[in-house]
Parts: sequence; C-alpha cells; structure tokens
Amino acid sequence: MKNIAVIGAGSWGTALALTLSNKGHQVKICDVDQAHIREMKEHRENVKYLPGIPFNDNLAVVGSTEEAMEGADIVLFSAPAQHFRSAFEHAIPLIEDSMVVVNVAKGIEQGTLMRMSEIATLLKPDVKYVVLSGPSHAEEVGRFLPTTVAVASKDMKLAEYIQDEFMTDRFRVYTNSDVCGVELGGALKNIIALGAGISDGIGFGDNAKAALMTRGITEMKRLGVSLGADPETFAGLTGVGDLIVTCTSMHSRNRRCGIMIGEGVKPSEATKKVGMVVEGMFTTIAAYELAKRVGVEMPITECIYECINEKIDAREAVEILMGRDKKNEMHI
Amino acid sequence: MKNIAVIGAGSWGTALALTLSNKGHQVKICDVDQAHIREMKEHRENVKYLPGIPFNDNLAVVGSTEEAMEGADIVLFSAPAQHFRSAFEHAIPLIEDSMVVVNVAKGIEQGTLMRMSEIATLLKPDVKYVVLSGPSHAEEVGRFLPTTVAVASKDMKLAEYIQDEFMTDRFRVYTNSDVCGVELGGALKNIIALGAGISDGIGFGDNAKAALMTRGITEMKRLGVSLGADPETFAGLTGVGDLIVTCTSMHSRNRRCGIMIGEGVKPSEATKKVGMVVEGMFTTIAAYELAKRVGVEMPITECIYECINEKIDAREAVEILMGRDKKNEMHI
Repeated sequence: MKNIAVIGAGSWGTALALTLSNKGHQVKICDVDQAHIREMKEHRENVKYLPGIPFNDNLAVVGSTEEAMEGADIVLFSAPAQHFRSAFEHAIPLIEDSMVVVNVAKGIEQGTLMRMSEIATLLKPDVKYVVLSGPSHAEEVGRFLPTTVAVASKDMKLAEYIQDEFMTDRFRVYTNSDVCGVELGGALKNIIALGAGISDGIGFGDNAKAALMTRGITEMKRLGVSLGADPETFAGLTGVGDLIVTCTSMHSRNRRCGIMIGEGVKPSEATKKVGMVVEGMFTTIAAYELAKRVGVEMPITECIYECINEKIDAREAVEILMGRDKKNEMHI
Repeated sequence: MKNIAVIGAGSWGTALALTLSNKGHQVKICDVDQAHIREMKEHRENVKYLPGIPFNDNLAVVGSTEEAMEGADIVLFSAPAQHFRSAFEHAIPLIEDSMVVVNVAKGIEQGTLMRMSEIATLLKPDVKYVVLSGPSHAEEVGRFLPTTVAVASKDMKLAEYIQDEFMTDRFRVYTNSDVCGVELGGALKNIIALGAGISDGIGFGDNAKAALMTRGITEMKRLGVSLGADPETFAGLTGVGDLIVTCTSMHSRNRRCGIMIGEGVKPSEATKKVGMVVEGMFTTIAAYELAKRVGVEMPITECIYECINEKIDAREAVEILMGRDKKNEMHI
C-alpha cells in the first residue's frame, strides 16, 4: 500500500485515482477548481467529468496540493498539458527525495515547444520522473474495463516500480525506456484525431479515415525520430494503439471537435462546444512549429494547422490530403 | 480505355467493377453462381451483395469466364481466397500473353498454406501478376467514398500500369514492391478482426480493442518477416490501415462473426449467421499452422484458433490475452 497524490481531478486523473484506490492504495485527489472539489466532496463522485462512479473510502478529496502531497510516495500529475508547468512549479517545494512523479498529461507546451519531461527536468533536474500513456479512455478505465498502458522513464527501475504499484488484472502496465517516443505519441495522435473527426464530419467513411490514420502514424514517427525517439515506440501502445482509440471512439474530445469542424462549425466555436480542453488544437500548432524547426515534412499536420487557423475550410483540407501526388507507398 | 474482366461478383468485385466502369473502362463481370448472374442482369445491380447502386452502361454482366475474358486487357479475380485456385485454373487457357492478372482475394489457402501469388505462379509461372489490397470496404467503394489502396507486383512496371488504369480522384492507388507483405497483411488482419469482434461482443471497450490491435499488428509483422516480407509494409495501408478498417467497422463480416462469438454464439453457428464467407476462420487455421512451421510466436492467433475450435470459450480467450505476463512493451 502506498500513499498517492493525484494533482488534477479531470476525467483521467479521477479514473486513475479510482483504479489506484480500488487496488488498495491510499489516494488523495485535489484540483485547482475549488467549486469542483466541494462538489466531489459532497457527492463522493466526479459529477462533472466522470459521473456515476462512486469513490472508495480510501480515495480522499482534498482542498490543496499541499494536503494531497503530504506523506505521498507517488505524485501523479493529471493537469492538462498546458497547465503542467504551473502545477509542477507549485509542487516542487513539496517534492521530497523519495517521491516518484508520474505524469499523464499528453501534449507539447505552446511557445516553448517542450515535452512534459523536459519541463520537469528543467525545473527540477533530479526529479524521479515517469510518464504514463497509452490507449485509455478515462470513461472505460473508471468502469474497470480492461485497459493496457505503458510507463516510461530514463530510469527503468522507476518505471518498474510504477508498473508494480499500478498494475491490476484490469489495468495492465508495460514498461518502455523511450520517454521521448512515449510522450510524442500521446501528444501527436491528437492532431490526427482532429483530422479523423473532420473526415467523419464531412461524411467520408471508414476507408478514408483508415488511410488518414495510416499516413498519420507515419508522419508522427517521422517527427519523433528526428527528435530522438525510437521508431518502434510508434508501433506500440502509446503510438498506433493510442491513435486507434482516439480516432475511432466518441469518447475522444479531439475527434468530437474535428467532427464539428467537418460539419461546418468554426474551429473556435467547436472548441467551446466540446466544453473540455481540446489538446489537439494546441498540439497542432506546436507540432507545426517543431516540424519547421527540424525540417520534417508533416503534410497532415500542416493541413489541420491551416484548417484550425481558418485559412482553408474542412472540405478543402481533406481534399488536399486525398489528392496528394505521391505514388509509391513507401514514400508517403 | 481498357477491356477488363472481373471474375467473381461478390461485394468487392462488384464495387471494383463499378469504379472501373465509372472511370470509362469496358468492364465485364461474371460469377460461378448462375442465379446470381441472372438476377444482376435483370436488375442491373448486385441486389444480393451490394444493393442500391445501379450499373453503368459500360458494365456488362456475362454468363461465363470465357465471355468475360474475351478481348480483356486486365483480368481481375475477386473470388474468395479458398476458391481462387479453381477460378484461376479455369481461366489459365484463356489468359493471353498481354493480359495482366489482378487479384483482390485476401487469404491463405487451407492445406497448402500458400499465398495467392504463390498459387498463381505455380500454376502459370509467366503470369503477369498484381495484388491489390488495403483499407477498402466494398460498401464505401461502391458509393464512391474516398478510398486508398496499394497494388504490388514483383514487376513494378505492372504495378504502375494498374495504378494508372485504376486510379480516380476517389480511389487512390499507391504502388508497393512487397507482394508477400501486402498479401499477408490482407490475410492475417482477419484473424485480429475476429479477436476484436470477440472483445466487443463480450462487452469490453475501445481500450481493450486498441491494445489487442496493437499487439495484433506486431504478431502479423513477426510472421510476415519470417516469411520474407518487408516489416515496413505492415505499417502501411495493407497492414495497419486494413487492420484498423476491419476491426472498427460494422461492414466487416469477420468482426461481425467475432461479435457473435463474444456474445456466446458457437463459432460454427456464427459463421452461418454472417451469410457470406468469413475468411478469418480459414486464415486463423492457416496462420496457426504457418507459425508452427516457421517457429514464430503468435499468441493472439493461437488463442483465436483454440476459440474457433471450441477448445476454450470467448471469455477465456480474451482473459488469456489480457493476462499475459510479458512486462516490457518491446518484448510483446
């Protein structure tokens, strides 16, 4: 049994808190939104983001990061990617040498173009850092449906420690040593999910979407390798696995946002209607800039970028993607 | 404009005949089932397998292979994989030197464990052979929804010829030189689709299915490479692309069959209820035997094999797949 702090009570943080408390850990969850905290305390469930699943007795809702982290063995950050820096900065004075940090945010920081582990290591060079990612809709994890994820760390002993503490018969955890690849897979797949949604929203079918996803994973890998990732990671759970789940399920807010854009809703409007953070909108801009910086071709990302910036409309975007003149599959 | 014979009027042969005649080619389609031919002649559509899409004037329904192949430049075989040998054998005396053979059957021959191109080359060593495969539900191709496929041949000039003759703005054709990999991707994905269906039928979610598909493509690639395929092919349209479309769409009869098995229907009963050929049932047995022959580990295939042979039930199969004790993602 470990003491685990969960920083951020969105759907994913809550689903993990449920899984970990259900395994027998003592879990404390907190959030910056105090009204949300009060509501969770009162109802003993996350009415807002993961309704219908009651909290176990060993899952405590607390009012502050300080309270959550007191005595913690593991600190799990589940803030949205664009808020990770501030959440982590706030927590740094509270991180003791023995504490292991697990981050589940998927994204690239706007402006700095940094991955989450880069931010953490910059701010606290000796941080014991593990990233957790993979095909894992919170709505299913919260209901204890079978799920498989990967944890990656530069220090494989840390990854194995988290694997042991998080693994259940319904929540399988694999280890991986490629932090860069695991982080990029989880982030970049949201761009392709926007594209898949746009294709669906226009009324195209499964054939078009599968072709888009296939080319998508290729361009994700291309950028990843140029940034130091292992190409094999993109063939795994945090690459193609997460891409599949995000592009084919209605649980994905990135895909839902894309569908609205495909149906003709303005991108800025569509984001508002989803009502939760649409990380893919940020990631598209970040990936577009990263690709320019390292000189990698990312035609799908470029198209989505122009589409969400309202330079081209959704139909134009998809037609551009369909009509490309490359002819040999290996050169896509 | 070319003269094209289509041998086999199932849904896929018909969708291709529609696409090709729509492009302006003179297409003749035939089938072994004479009642089916009469019905298509009368209604000028494929009422049985692709209803609601009227035939163009330059798509002729004819009563025999002989009639279809007379004067043909291209002969497209769209018989089910287990019937390709007999269809091709029957056609051999009619194949002139100039004719190019295109095969769209996806499967491995039971008993001999031969790929379709191996059968063709054995029976007619100088055959001009091209395989066409990729994520392409007939129901969508027939309705001219955007679709992308690959054509592969040992002779790239032949692949490029078929690319030129088949390509439209809604039916994109890429070339590939890896015949073995293209054939195996199209065949083996049906095994994983059965598994994905079983997972869905039991009531598992998108997370479990994505994990299964991710491990599935890994084991497809493992067998493929041991049989001489290029590993990259499995990351392309005919590998992961076709896997995605087959595992996530209700158009797939393999997945539909799996869903019934997952719901508790006996495998033999489920096949009957689907009403069309469930190629994955044959392919599972063939791949199981091939894997034994070349000494490759295929845990998912083995599980599905035991499940369709009624040695274990569906829930047992999925629990075995979920509960495997491998721990590092790269060793899955």
